Order: sequence, then structure tokens, then C-alpha cells
Amino acid sequence: MEHKIRTDLALEVRESFENDNVEIKGVVLTEEFENDNKIRITTVEIKDEEGARAMQKPIGTYITIEAPELDSASEDYCKPVSDLIAKYLKKLAGDLNKEDVLVVGLGNREVTPDALGPQVIDNLFVTRHLIREYGEEFRKRNNLGSVSAISPGVMAQTGMETLEIIKGVIKETNPKLIIAIDALASRSISRLNTTVQIADTGISPGSGVGNDRKALNEETLGVKVIAIGVPTVVDAATIVADTLTKYMESTGFGQEDIFKFISEVNGHQMYNMFVTPKNIDEAVKRISYTLSEALNSCFSQPVMS
Amino acid sequence: MEHKIRTDLALEVRESFENDNVEIKGVVLTEEFENDNKIRITTVEIKDEEGARAMQKPIGTYITIEAPELDSASEDYCKPVSDLIAKYLKKLAGDLNKEDVLVVGLGNREVTPDALGPQVIDNLFVTRHLIREYGEEFRKRNNLGSVSAISPGVMAQTGMETLEIIKGVIKETNPKLIIAIDALASRSISRLNTTVQIADTGISPGSGVGNDRKALNEETLGVKVIAIGVPTVVDAATIVADTLTKYMESTGFGQEDIFKFISEVNGHQMYNMFVTPKNIDEAVKRISYTLSEALNSCFSQPVMS
Amino acid sequence: MEHKIRTDLALEVRESFENDNVEIKGVVLTEEFENDNKIRITTVEIKDEEGARAMQKPIGTYITIEAPELDSASEDYCKPVSDLIAKYLKKLAGDLNKEDVLVVGLGNREVTPDALGPQVIDNLFVTRHLIREYGEEFRKRNNLGSVSAISPGVMAQTGMETLEIIKGVIKETNPKLIIAIDALASRSISRLNTTVQIADTGISPGSGVGNDRKALNEETLGVKVIAIGVPTVVDAATIVADTLTKYMESTGFGQEDIFKFISEVNGHQMYNMFVTPKNIDEAVKRISYTLSEALNSCFSQPVMS
Amino acid sequence: MEHKIRTDLALEVRESFENDNVEIKGVVLTEEFENDNKIRITTVEIKDEEGARAMQKPIGTYITIEAPELDSASEDYCKPVSDLIAKYLKKLAGDLNKEDVLVVGLGNREVTPDALGPQVIDNLFVTRHLIREYGEEFRKRNNLGSVSAISPGVMAQTGMETLEIIKGVIKETNPKLIIAIDALASRSISRLNTTVQIADTGISPGSGVGNDRKALNEETLGVKVIAIGVPTVVDAATIVADTLTKYMESTGFGQEDIFKFISEVNGHQMYNMFVTPKNIDEAVKRISYTLSEALNSCFSQPVMS
Repeated sequence: MEHKIRTDLALEVRESFENDNVEIKGVVLTEEFENDNKIRITTVEIKDEEGARAMQKPIGTYITIEAPELDSASEDYCKPVSDLIAKYLKKLAGDLNKEDVLVVGLGNREVTPDALGPQVIDNLFVTRHLIREYGEEFRKRNNLGSVSAISPGVMAQTGMETLEIIKGVIKETNPKLIIAIDALASRSISRLNTTVQIADTGISPGSGVGNDRKALNEETLGVKVIAIGVPTVVDAATIVADTLTKYMESTGFGQEDIFKFISEVNGHQMYNMFVTPKNIDEAVKRISYTLSEALNSCFSQPVMS
Repeated sequence: MEHKIRTDLALEVRESFENDNVEIKGVVLTEEFENDNKIRITTVEIKDEEGARAMQKPIGTYITIEAPELDSASEDYCKPVSDLIAKYLKKLAGDLNKEDVLVVGLGNREVTPDALGPQVIDNLFVTRHLIREYGEEFRKRNNLGSVSAISPGVMAQTGMETLEIIKGVIKETNPKLIIAIDALASRSISRLNTTVQIADTGISPGSGVGNDRKALNEETLGVKVIAIGVPTVVDAATIVADTLTKYMESTGFGQEDIFKFISEVNGHQMYNMFVTPKNIDEAVKRISYTLSEALNSCFSQPVMS
Repeated sequence: MEHKIRTDLALEVRESFENDNVEIKGVVLTEEFENDNKIRITTVEIKDEEGARAMQKPIGTYITIEAPELDSASEDYCKPVSDLIAKYLKKLAGDLNKEDVLVVGLGNREVTPDALGPQVIDNLFVTRHLIREYGEEFRKRNNLGSVSAISPGVMAQTGMETLEIIKGVIKETNPKLIIAIDALASRSISRLNTTVQIADTGISPGSGVGNDRKALNEETLGVKVIAIGVPTVVDAATIVADTLTKYMESTGFGQEDIFKFISEVNGHQMYNMFVTPKNIDEAVKRISYTLSEALNSCFSQPVMS
Repeated sequence: MEHKIRTDLALEVRESFENDNVEIKGVVLTEEFENDNKIRITTVEIKDEEGARAMQKPIGTYITIEAPELDSASEDYCKPVSDLIAKYLKKLAGDLNKEDVLVVGLGNREVTPDALGPQVIDNLFVTRHLIREYGEEFRKRNNLGSVSAISPGVMAQTGMETLEIIKGVIKETNPKLIIAIDALASRSISRLNTTVQIADTGISPGSGVGNDRKALNEETLGVKVIAIGVPTVVDAATIVADTLTKYMESTGFGQEDIFKFISEVNGHQMYNMFVTPKNIDEAVKRISYTLSEALNSCFSQPVMS
């Protein structure tokens, strides 16, 4: 099994190109600041196949919101972050935010850092059945969007690919936009629970913790997919390899087959391990609440907010 | 809103015909005993449309296992009950128990008496993905059946009918048999957590606690549906009406519009209430474990057991 | 076993005295309205032993806040209710709200209508350990109160009386005020999930769902105990008896031994049953959140708020 | 903050002395095999202060059961492991297994690898309240031991040291033996979820994931404390340091201040991180079930089993 540096953040892939002044063809990077410069928003646009090859990510827009206190308990802080997420979500959703939206909470509810998606669904204001029961008049009077939601579970629980479940649900319920929420893996510990990535390119479920392999995107589902991800884990082999590489650089040694060495020392189980902080329960609870708020304001009450 | 005596048990419908010696046309009742007469198995067969009209239930076979200690902690007791359930499941499944099976855990994980279905799924041995990954050779060597599973949630959580979700999943994954697990409503307190009904007629999700209305059955899904249900609640208005009726009989009064009276006294909220025992958490935990064991032995290892 | 009308609400006991104009000696009733008359606050003061005998409740102050949308999802509504609860809590706590406070979440986390207490604890801002680690300076700078918290579980889970656990914890940690949160039983369905009772008299744990019998109060614990309760269930026998009584009145019959009759019809299991609404999961989640907010503003940040 | 190699297993401390043939004064190591040599049981006895200093662990007996399939779903495998655990538990408990036993489930229920202790409590057969209610006659007839149990939560949830809570509960309920269950940190990935350590020396809660610091032992509690621990995590800095050290050895470099280097590269957050496998939810569920079985057979039915 080949193993390599793992990150789900386009921003970290971009950073891995050593010299930040180097232009990567087909990739445009822009930066904004909000909230007294405490929140940085970076947009990575992969414009063409050349950029996609260099970045090893699909063509599309990746917006990264870095909010150091994202997992904070303070409502004073959560509201502006939630508003920012809603703003960029709307930007990527375009007119689709008034259409039928299906929110998919990816991940395993029973593994704390992977429970982000299901916990967002738990706090979501779901409206599709109300609109179908009470009609268009009711919808207009309450300025409601039509939101449905599902936490499909992971393959070890269902025996099915997430793609199979979602594809089937889409065929029966015909949403016009999919929002997929997932826990991600970052390369750096400092990005854990402080970063939100919003991308219009879809997502490969379980890239953070689980193992489902088939992408959810417009190509596989026939509907636009916006992915919202928050890194809650670092791949264990990646953190060891990164530290080892830096150590070797500091001692003047060249990079060798570090992952192979890690395997020899730790066994292949290393590749099914992740690193996560001890307070991950509180972090996931708070961040999922902030994401739910953003989704509720963006899709359930698109007119009011 | 019309309200009437609520029971999901065919056996209780049958019992409601006053004189047990009366033959109901198109309905055949048989009785067996197991485990030193401690467990009674009653089979209600609804043979034709006339029987279906009388019983107000679809044509088919309803097997009721009454095991007074079903919610017992003792393994000595659980194993025989679990074996009995597996035996009758196999009888209804016929040759389909060697085919791809999808187990559906109906109900709301967050409401204790309605969590039976999802808790059964939590303890299920799911194999479909293993067989797809490791192949037919692996399947034969381990005598595995192919089992997939899903807990779709309830309409208030998803905004979708359970039927829509399951229909979609079936289209994508092509199971040949559906097993639907649900918490039921019985008419009598003494049947709570002591009774298992297995029926080859499908099920209307949420008849126990929730409100989804569309039936899961061969007609709506195109695949045979065996329903396994355990009564964990009594409808609140039913229990009041039943007691009131008996009171009036004991005082020589005739039956009047009792449900109307209950509404006047308790308000219409009465019809969204259920009655359940205080130790429902332990009962659901134990019964779900017994059902999982029965399903595992019946479908995941159909040859071995 | 004797059974009688069950209610944990002093207000409902007071109401049960037929003629509201009748003065009950030793009991003073006052009424206020808030939020455009949508919220009614009733204070029942039991002044002396005579009042206590009549009410069959300990001497003290019982404040009942009736807020029809208490279980509402709307933040616009939750905030004023939460502020009101904090206001009356402070009134009963007096100067003790700046002292060490221990919040006790009574009830069984695994039974949805009984999970209110533990869920309040889950959202509480706990500070005692921070103050002990970072010192008085830190406390002042952040205007923190000192809050500790525990969800002791119920006797069926622990094998211990709640009183034993809390007594022991108090001896070791010396709080000056106990706040005990519990799910209650009301007599009327319309009070479920719409009513908060705050009392300075302590509480008998599990009166709502569980069975622990020993009171938590200043006499048993040596520390003032303020109880916050929300009715989430109605005792099953009570609702049947109440309906039956009203039926007999409407037909001109006198009251007889109704509870005995209920037992004969339903068996003694009836007395271990409760009635609760189908959407109890959402109601408990929202109400626990509102209570946590009230407690956080009252005790964790007593100066700021 | 000083950081060093972290392990809670006495066996791993013993192994860290390079040459296994070297005798460490005051430490006796014995080895047995069970179940066709598939299970290894190692006993480390620390006999005196000299041994305690060398091992940096208290004087006492540490029994380590290495069962590669400890987290297996197969009942054929769980039963022998559960029986072995019960056997060694009884050995350490001596006559105390017939006395009042308090089982303490340490750890944070909300963080999957730390939920082992609370999940063991969830499956425990608790009897103390039954014996107090039904008397000595009932106890003898059913061959019951007297077991009480508590999951006290972690300091971030309660604001209290675990020691404070347990000390108080002991004072009120007077158990004669404490069994403390906790998730541990091992040094090696291959020991995760495959190893049980039983020690008669007590435990420092939260050494695995949490941060409570005060030991639960006979000195602090006045009652004998047997600790049962299963490593479910590896300290993140330890795994990086171990790999780095081995790398340097393989390249001929000497060990330097590796932890300092790790801090420079990864920041101090590294020391609040842990490594755990992706399937930790299933592992913890199965192992907690096996431990509950062992405890039930050892203490709740000490005569029967």
C-alpha cells in the first residue's frame, strides 16, 4: 500500500509548494480578512486541468475560513463565523439556495472527531415535509426554503457505499443542490478545529476518518454538490513523516523513504490511525452548532436572513 | 380527526372479536407452545380479501411470539427466544435468506421506546461490503450471507418519507429481501416488551411512535418485506378509552362517543401521546440485542447456524 | 400499594382545591405576567405547617413559569424565557449566587423524558476547576462564579440512592448552594414541556420517572437546595383516573375507588407507566438548552449578566 | 512543560530496559500462556521501593493479558478472555469479592477511546439497591454479590477531581473494594485494543486521555483499589518520538532532545493530542462488553460462577 502526505485542504496542498511566490499555472489564490483581521479567508481557484494536476484536486473553488476560535463557546464569536460561512455558502450556491436542498451529514456518529456531519444534521431545521404537507402558501408566509437531511452512516455500519445511498435518495426526492458536511484530515495540528473549507467540487466521503472511496460530486450524482469540511484529525503517519522530514532537514540529511521506515517501525496499522485533540468532544459539539446555524440561515430561511 | 383503538398486533385485532369461538371468514388462527409452555406462538393467517377487511390488515402471515421474559437480562433465556425468532424468520424468508438482504431499522433513535430499530442495526453483523471487496471465494469460505443495513431516521429529522429513502436505496443496491424492524403500539400494557410479531406483509413505519404514513411492502418496494415488530408503547387515548369502556360495562352503561369525550377533557394533544414503562431503556437495549442475534444467525451466517 | 393523583407541581395541587376563591390557610398565591401576557408567573408560598399539610408539600416558595412555547426552536423566544428563569433563580438564591454552586442533573440519560437534568449538565459552563487552577485573580478578571456539576444517574444504574452520592460529593467539595434539575410529572397534558417550577424547598429525585425516594433538601444535605423542574410526563394511572372521574361527573355518578378499578383492568404494571408526547426528544433538547443558558448567566457569570 | 515517553502499562516500562536478561532489582516478571498460546499473561511484581523507583510505578502486582483478538466480535473468543479476566480479578481481590464492591467507570463518555469505563458501567449488573430493598434472604437465594457503580465524568465536565467525587461516595456507601476501569495509553500501536492490565495498585484517572491528576488508591481512599485498564490510545508525541529515535538509531545518530524538537515543529498542542485507530468505536463497544461480563461473573454472582 502506498502512503503519502494526507491533507483534505486545498490550501495546504497549495502551501506545500515550497516558495509561495511561485505561480502555479491554473491556480489562483486570493486572501481576505474579516473580524479585525482575526479571521482569514483564502480562496483557491483551480482553473483548468493543469492546475488540477498540480494540486491533485478537482477543478473548482475552495474557500478556506481560518477562525482561531472556531471551537469557542462564546456566542459573541460564533455568530460572526456562522454569518461568514453562510455568506460564502450563498456565493457558491448561487440561485440554488432557494431550491430543494439535501444536506448530507457524512461520517460515523460513534467516533467523536468523525461525528461532525451527523451532529450538524441533528441541529438542522428540516422543512421539506412541512412544505409538502402545508403547501406553497405556508412556505411563502414563513419564507421557508425546502431542506431535507440524512446521516447515511459509514460503510462499516451499512455495508453500502455512501454514494449508493445518496444516489438512491436523490432519485426519489429530486433535490437541486446537495450540501455534504464531513470531518477532514489536515496536515497540521494548528488547523484542527479552527478551519472551515467550503468547495463547489464535491467530496470523497470518509477522507478524514473513514474509508468510503467514491466521490460525491456533480458527475456521480447529477446535481451540484457543495462540500463543507472541518479538519478534526491529522493522519498519524503524516504527522510522524512531517516531523521526521523536518528533523532530517535540520540535520542536513536528504529525504528518503520515510513512510516505508514508519511502516517498519510501527507496522501497517499506523495507516489506520488518526491523531486528534483530547477535547475533541467539545470542539465538535460547538463547531457543528455553528455550521447548523449557517445552514439554517442560508437554506431554511433564505429570504429572511 | 377521527381516532380509534390503536394496535399494530394482528393477534390483538383478532382478540377484539368478542367470542373466541366465532370463526372469522378468511382468517386462520393456530397456536404452539415452546420452552416448557412459557412461550406461546400464535399464527394469524389472513387468507383473502374478506379476512383482510374484517381484520383491517393486509393478506399474509402474522406470527406472534409471546415471551414474558423477552426483556430479561439472563442469557439463558435470551438464546432460546433468539433461536425461535430466527426459526420463524427463516420460515417466512424461504430461500431468500441466502440472497442479499437489507435490514431497515425504523424509528427515532432519540426517543427511547422508538429506538428499537436503530439499536438492532447497531448490533448487526453487516457483510455486503466485505463480500464485494473480498469476493465470492471469501463469502463461501466464511459461509457468509450478504447483509446491508440502514437506520433512515424519521420524517421530522429528514424531511423525507421513509419510503422515499428506502426505495432509492433499493434501486441502487438491489437487495432481494427487506427486513424492517420497528417499535409497535399494542393495546394492552401486558404485551409491552414481551411480544414479537413477524409478518410477511410489510409495515407502515412509525405506527408505534412516529407519523410517517407510507407502507413499506412488496407493492411499494418491488421486493418482499418481512416486518419484525415489538410493542414498546400503548397509544395514550387507547388505554384511557379501553379503561373507560370497561368501567361503563361494569356499571351497566352502554358505550358512547368515548374518544370524543377524552378529547374534550384532555385536549387534542392526547393523540400525540404514548404510554411506556419507566424501565424502557433497559427493555429496548436487551430486546434489540436478542433481535440482532436472531438476524445475525439467520442472514449473516445462514449456513453455519 | 396505594396510588393517588400524581403531580409534582405545587400550582396543580393548589388548583385541585375546587373553588379558587377559597383561601387555603398558610398558602399565598400571587400572579404576574410577562412578554405581552404570553408568559404567566405564579408564586405559591407555603407559609406554615398548616399550609404544608393542606398542600402536602414542604414549606417554601414555588415559582411556576408557564411559557406555552418553552419547547420552541426560535431563539427570539428562548432568550426572554431563559432571562426570566435566571431572574427568579437569583431571587431565590439571594447572595449565594456568588458562592460555590453545585448543579445536579437528576434523572436517567437513557430515557428521553427523564434526560432533562443530564442534558442541562452537558451544556453547562463549569468553572470550579479553572478557578482552583488559575486562582482568584483569574476569577475576578473574568467575573466568574464557581460552578461544579454532576449527573449522578438513577438507582437502577448505580445501586445507590442519589442522596448518598450527592451527600458524599458535598462533603468533599463544600458547595454553598445546590441547584437540582429534574424532569417532573404534571397532572395535565397541557403543562408538559411548557412549564418551569423553581422552588427553594429541595426535591425528591425521580418523582417524574424514576423511583429514588430520599429528598435532597437543606435538612438532608446541610446546604440550601433550589430545585428546577419541568414536567415532561404525566403518570399513566393519573391521566386515566382523571378522565374517568370527569366522565362520571358528566354522567352524574359519584366517584368510587377508581384507582382500584384501573388496577383490575390494566394490572399493577400501570403504576410503572408514564405518558409523554411523541416529539419529546426535541422538547427536552430545547428546554435543556434554555435552562443551561439561564444557569450559565446566573452562576457562571453572575457579575456580567 | 516536560514531556517524556508515555505508557500506562507496567509491562512496557519493564520492556524499555534494553536487555531483557538484565534483572531489575525488586521487580519479578513471570509469564504464562492460555488458549493454545494465543493469549499471553505477564505478571510484573514490583516488590520494594527500589523496584518502584526503577519502574516509576507503585509497589504492587500488574497482570497484563495480551489477547490479539480482544476486540473481536466472535463470542467464541470473548468468553475465554472474559473468563481469564475474571480469574485474575478474583486472584487480586481475594476474599473481598464477596464484599460490597463499587465499580468506577473513569473517562469521558463523549470521546470514543475514553468511553471504555462508562460503557462498562452501562452493561454492569448492579445489585446493591436490590439487596438493601429485599434483604439478606434474597441475596443468599440468588447468590448475589453487592455491586454499586458510578461513571463520575471528567474534570472538564464536573469541575471536580474524580478523587473528590469517589472519596465522597465511599464515605456515604462504605464499599470494601473499588474496581476502577479506565482507558490507558500504551507506547505501541500493536497493544491498542488487544491488552488488559489488572493491577492492585490503584490508578491515576485520565492518564489515557483526560487530565485529572490525583490517584485513586488505598492511600487516598482508605479502601483497596483494583484497576482494570485497556490501552485505546497512544500519546501523539510519544509515537513521533519513538519513530524518530529509531530512525536516528538506524542512521547512526545519537538521541538528542527529540521532544523539544517535536514541540518546535508541531507546537505545544502536540501534547494534548492522542493517536487512535479508525475503528475505535467497535473496539471499545466489544471490549467494554467483555469486561462487563468478567465483572458480572466475578462480583454480581460470585458463588454461581
